[in-house]
Amino acid sequence: MPSPAVEYARQNHPRFLHELKALLRIPSVSTLPEHKGDCHFAAEVLAADLSKIGMENVRLIETGEDRGGGHPLVYADWLHAAGKPTVLVYGHYDVQPPDPLDEWISPPFEPEERNGNLYARGAVDDKGQVIAQVKALESLLAATGKLPLNVRVLFEGEEEVGGEGIASYVATKPADLKADFALICDTELFAPGLPTLCVGIRGMIYTELEVRGAKTDLHSGMYGGAAPNPFFALAQILAKLKDEDGHILIPGFYDDVVAPSEEELAAWRSLPFDEEHYRLTEVGSKELVGEKGYSVLERTWARPTLEVHGIAGGFIGAGAKTVIPAKATAKISMRLVPDMTPAHAFAQYKSFVEKIVPPGVDVEVRLIHSGDACLIPVDNPYIRAATLALKEVWGKETVFIRSGGSIPIVGDFDRQLGLPSVMMGFGLPDDNLHAPNEKFNLKNFELGIQSLIRFLEEAGG
Amino acid sequence: MPSPAVEYARQNHPRFLHELKALLRIPSVSTLPEHKGDCHFAAEVLAADLSKIGMENVRLIETGEDRGGGHPLVYADWLHAAGKPTVLVYGHYDVQPPDPLDEWISPPFEPEERNGNLYARGAVDDKGQVIAQVKALESLLAATGKLPLNVRVLFEGEEEVGGEGIASYVATKPADLKADFALICDTELFAPGLPTLCVGIRGMIYTELEVRGAKTDLHSGMYGGAAPNPFFALAQILAKLKDEDGHILIPGFYDDVVAPSEEELAAWRSLPFDEEHYRLTEVGSKELVGEKGYSVLERTWARPTLEVHGIAGGFIGAGAKTVIPAKATAKISMRLVPDMTPAHAFAQYKSFVEKIVPPGVDVEVRLIHSGDACLIPVDNPYIRAATLALKEVWGKETVFIRSGGSIPIVGDFDRQLGLPSVMMGFGLPDDNLHAPNEKFNLKNFELGIQSLIRFLEEAGG
Repeated sequence: MPSPAVEYARQNHPRFLHELKALLRIPSVSTLPEHKGDCHFAAEVLAADLSKIGMENVRLIETGEDRGGGHPLVYADWLHAAGKPTVLVYGHYDVQPPDPLDEWISPPFEPEERNGNLYARGAVDDKGQVIAQVKALESLLAATGKLPLNVRVLFEGEEEVGGEGIASYVATKPADLKADFALICDTELFAPGLPTLCVGIRGMIYTELEVRGAKTDLHSGMYGGAAPNPFFALAQILAKLKDEDGHILIPGFYDDVVAPSEEELAAWRSLPFDEEHYRLTEVGSKELVGEKGYSVLERTWARPTLEVHGIAGGFIGAGAKTVIPAKATAKISMRLVPDMTPAHAFAQYKSFVEKIVPPGVDVEVRLIHSGDACLIPVDNPYIRAATLALKEVWGKETVFIRSGGSIPIVGDFDRQLGLPSVMMGFGLPDDNLHAPNEKFNLKNFELGIQSLIRFLEEAGG
Repeated sequence: MPSPAVEYARQNHPRFLHELKALLRIPSVSTLPEHKGDCHFAAEVLAADLSKIGMENVRLIETGEDRGGGHPLVYADWLHAAGKPTVLVYGHYDVQPPDPLDEWISPPFEPEERNGNLYARGAVDDKGQVIAQVKALESLLAATGKLPLNVRVLFEGEEEVGGEGIASYVATKPADLKADFALICDTELFAPGLPTLCVGIRGMIYTELEVRGAKTDLHSGMYGGAAPNPFFALAQILAKLKDEDGHILIPGFYDDVVAPSEEELAAWRSLPFDEEHYRLTEVGSKELVGEKGYSVLERTWARPTLEVHGIAGGFIGAGAKTVIPAKATAKISMRLVPDMTPAHAFAQYKSFVEKIVPPGVDVEVRLIHSGDACLIPVDNPYIRAATLALKEVWGKETVFIRSGGSIPIVGDFDRQLGLPSVMMGFGLPDDNLHAPNEKFNLKNFELGIQSLIRFLEEAGG
C-alpha cells in the first residue's frame, strides 16, 4: 500500500511549487547588509508555514547580538511520537549574492520554469530543499494526523556566510536540540536519477589578505619605479602559495591529510563519472587543473585547495586610470579535509604569508569564517533507513559520495550534540550553485519530497 | 618697469581664482561615459572665456566620430603680431576619476581652500594650469591691447584617456596648428619655489590582460581542485612579468633603453632631493622599491616600469562568496623611455604573456592606448626665454628635469608638426595627482600666471 503522505504530496505538488516560488522571490542574500530585512522576512515566511502545517513551538531565534545582529534561526518541533527517535531537520533559507547579474537568462529573484527546471538564486541551494522538507512534514501531518517520529526543525539564515549564529547556538547545547540524528538537505545526487547520500564534506577557512604600500593612491607615471604596488606584491604572494599544478606550497599544509580508504577509493572509481564529460559540461575550461596523481573526485572531495575569489583595490572602471593603489585586498579561501583543523591551517597560512611578504609592503591576514571537515560513519540505522527509502522512490541502490563543499553545521552537530547526520539532497551537479542561472530540477523537487516522507517513515520504524 | 600685464594679473587675481573654481566644479572625467556631457560643458566654458578675453576664431573641434564620439578640442588664436614667432598653447580640461571618494577630505568637485592650497580633482592636473594660461593671455590682451607674439590655443579633453582625438587631429597637420614652438603647461616644479622646466617624459602602453577559465562562475567547494582559477593564473603571470626588485622580465624589454648622459645624471644628483624625505612625505611606504643600482630619479624618469592598476572579476563585496570566477581582467600599464617604442614594447609584452599562460586558461591581451617617450633639446631660444622669465618671477635659476609621467602630445607636436615644446608647469611633487585630495598651491597658481605672461613677452622678443 503506498504511503498516504506520498499520495498527499502528489496531489498537492502544484501548490508546493507555488510556495517554493514565493520563497525564491525574497532576495535573502545573507552577506549583503542591504538584504538584512529580506533574510528576516524569509525566516518569518518559513515560521508561518511551519505553524500552518501543524508544527509546534514555532519561533525565530535571534542570533549575533554581539556582532550587531545576525539573521534569525527558525525553530519548530513536533514531539508526540513516544518511544520513537527524534530527528533534527536542518536547512538554510539564505542565498549567495546573484552577481554577475548580466549572465542570468531570467532574473535571479523571479523564478522561472524552463526545460523541466526551476531557475532562481536559491532554487536548489537551499530553499528548494528546505521547502521539500517542510512539505514532507506537511504531507505526513495532513495525511496521517501525526509524524512517524519526533521532529525538531532548525533552519538558519547564515549558511552562506559561515553559519556563526547557528554554531553559537548549537554550542550552548540547548535542550530543544536534543535529538538522535540530524537530517541535512543541502546536497545533490551524484548523477540524474541516482540516489545519493553524502557522507563527507570538506571544511574551510575564508580569509582576507590585505596588502598595503604607499599611504595614498599614487600616479603610476610619477611614482612607478619607486613606490611599491600592492597588486604586484599580492601576485607574488599568491604565486608562492600554490604552484601551477594546484599543489599548495604552505609548509606542513598536508601533514594532517588522511587519505580515503582503498575501499572508498574503489567505490569512487565505480561511480558513473567521466572526467572529459565533466570538463565539457560542467567546467567548460580548455583543460582541468589540479594536483597530479589524483583523480578529479579525489582532488575535489579528499584534497585541500586554495582559491582566490576576488581582488579589491585600484581602478576597474571602463577605460584607463594610471594609479598605484595604496592597498589591495584579496578574498582567499582554503578547503580542508580530515584531519586538518581550521585553526591549524589558518595559522600555517598566516605564518607563511608573513614570511614571504615582498619588499615595501605590509600585509594583514584576516580570518572571516571557518568550518570543520567531516566524515560520517555509514553503519547506522538512519543511513540504512535512508537507503531503503531512496531505493523505493528512485528504484536504484544508493551511492555514497563526499562533497567538496562545506556544511560546517555537520561538524557542529557531531561534536557539540553527538548527532550523526544523514545528508540527503536532490540537486544535480550542473545546478549552477553560487553561479548565474542556478536551477532545481522539477522532477527532483517532487521525488525529493517523496524521498523525505519515506525516509522519515522508515526512520520512525 | 614691471610688466603692465603682470600688474593686471595681480589686481584681477581673486576673480581668476573664482573662475578656476567654476571650472573645477564641472566633473569632466574623460574615462567615464556618464561624464561625457560634463566634458563637453567644460570645453564650452573654456571656449566662451577665450572669446570673452579677445581671442579669435574660437571653436570646438569634435573628435572621435569613428569611435562613437570623443571629447572636443578647444581652439582659439590671435595672429596679429607680424614678424613674431607663433606659440601653440596646450593644456587639457579632462580629469582622472576621483575614486576612492571616501579618502577625500573635501568633495573632489567642490573646490576648497585649505592651508594655502586649492583642493579639487583637476586643481593642478590640469585645469589650474589651463586657467593660468588663459588668464596670462587675458592679462596681456587687457593690459596692452595685444599679444607679444602670435598665439594659437589647443586644449584637449582626452589627455587622461590617451589623447586619441588630439593625436588624430595633429596627424592631419592642419594649417591652423602652424607654429614655431609649443607651450605645455601640465608639469610641476621640482621643489617649492624652484623654477623648473621639464625636458623629458616617459611614454606608455596601457593594456588589459583578460584571463578566462571555466565557462561560468563556479562554486569553489564543488570545483576547487579541478577548475582553473583565473585569479591564480593572473598572479602567476604577473609574478613572471616583474621580479621583486622591479626588474621587468619580458625578454628584450630593455634593449632599446638609452641611458641619460653623464652630464644629465650629474645635474640630477645636484637637485635638492632626499630619497628618505621623498619616501616619508610623498610615498609613505615602509621602504621604496625598484631596480637595484639606480637612484629614485633614474628609476622614475629614465627606466621603464610595469604596474597593475586594478583586477576585475569574482566577488569583492562585503563578507564571503565562494566563487571561482569564469574570468579575471587586470589593467596593466608600462612606462617607456627613449628609445623604446609603444608598438615594439606591446608586441614583446603580448608575446611573452602568451608564452607563460598557465594550464587551463586562455588569455587575451588588449592595447587600450599608448604614447611615445620624448626628450626635448634645451639649446633653443624658447627654452632660453623661459629660463629668463622664470628667473625674474621666482628669483632663482631654472633646473631641468624629466617626468616619469606621459604627455603623448609632446611627441606628436615634435614628430608631426616639428615643434619643440617648452614644458613649464607649476604643480608640486606632493599635489596628489590622480589620487584623493589633489591640490594646487595658491601661490604657485599666482606666480604661474605671472611666469607665463613674462615668458610670452620674452618669447616675443
